[in-house]
Amino acid sequence: MTEKGLLLVLSGPSGVGKGTVKSAIVDGKVFPFEYSVSMTTRKPRPGEVDGKDYYFVSEERFQEAINQGELLEYNKYVDHFYGTPLVPVKRMLEEGKDVLLEIDVNGAKKVREKMPDGVFIFLTPPDLHTLHQRLENRGTESEDVIMGRIKQARNEILVMQDYDYAVVNDTVANAVDHIKAIVDAEHVSVKRVIDTYRKMVRED
Amino acid sequence: MTEKGLLLVLSGPSGVGKGTVKSAIVDGKVFPFEYSVSMTTRKPRPGEVDGKDYYFVSEERFQEAINQGELLEYNKYVDHFYGTPLVPVKRMLEEGKDVLLEIDVNGAKKVREKMPDGVFIFLTPPDLHTLHQRLENRGTESEDVIMGRIKQARNEILVMQDYDYAVVNDTVANAVDHIKAIVDAEHVSVKRVIDTYRKMVRED
Repeated sequence: MTEKGLLLVLSGPSGVGKGTVKSAIVDGKVFPFEYSVSMTTRKPRPGEVDGKDYYFVSEERFQEAINQGELLEYNKYVDHFYGTPLVPVKRMLEEGKDVLLEIDVNGAKKVREKMPDGVFIFLTPPDLHTLHQRLENRGTESEDVIMGRIKQARNEILVMQDYDYAVVNDTVANAVDHIKAIVDAEHVSVKRVIDTYRKMVRED
Repeated sequence: MTEKGLLLVLSGPSGVGKGTVKSAIVDGKVFPFEYSVSMTTRKPRPGEVDGKDYYFVSEERFQEAINQGELLEYNKYVDHFYGTPLVPVKRMLEEGKDVLLEIDVNGAKKVREKMPDGVFIFLTPPDLHTLHQRLENRGTESEDVIMGRIKQARNEILVMQDYDYAVVNDTVANAVDHIKAIVDAEHVSVKRVIDTYRKMVRED
């Protein structure tokens, strides 16, 4: 029985360590998944291969991809566009392969709109998780610092609420363990497997 | 930060091996959880301790417990009643402890009505999972046997659809691994942790 693959979206505030966690998943071969090759308008660096590292395209082509709805999400960093082509992601999911996207929170929001069935993992800064201790021990830090962190925390929690899972990145190993468990659990969730079972007993 | 515990309900068709899987979780100390002590009208066996193995009560007392809504679920096996008292389960969950109930599908249905936030795990017979192969290889088995299994499968799938997870009990070790992953993933699900984060930033 082949079920559809999972679209795993790993995101979180900038600086939380999304890239490090993703690399640990890749290097440790924690679970099998497919890469999505991004499209970009920046020039290839030496050794980079078109279609493998990125799809290197002109700005006109990129703009066309946006207009034609070919991108799951896109963003502009510095002077260049980066985006995730939709068709290969959909094809891999249909083939039963899990796809991992590591993107910023704006990108994740756009992906959620187009693919609400995805598994959205919010990587949480450890100091958000331990903020309650700092609140309890007021006096050891300036009130400005604490208030600033509370304000930022409110924003992080507002973003987090649209995700499925909140994984604290206290250590990379812990974060990776939780993500592995999430992938395993999602693969046996009834909402994902029930259609396959239903199809099976219909065919008699 | 103390989050509420998880109510884990392990159920499935009779004969699927619920008791064996539960024992493996207990013996292997796979994750920490609390037992719920059942109430029963049967007499204690030698060595059984009231309040530890069961709450041993009279039939009048059991009937009163039913009428007063004191039971999360109850059932009659042979000549005796067995039920799960609600108050201790709620208290353990409030204390942040996970509670594991291993009950039949009728009991699980009643628990779902009273505690929809529970994590409902359907233990799936391995021959339901492999039924598609038997359907593809028709001719090696009598059509009556196949049709009987399809009919039973339809019932199992109807029950399964009200659960959160479907774990195939192909080997006890595999089933236990999946259940461990489910518990881990549920503990980092946003719907369970978001209130704790929200409370934290409200208290300034």
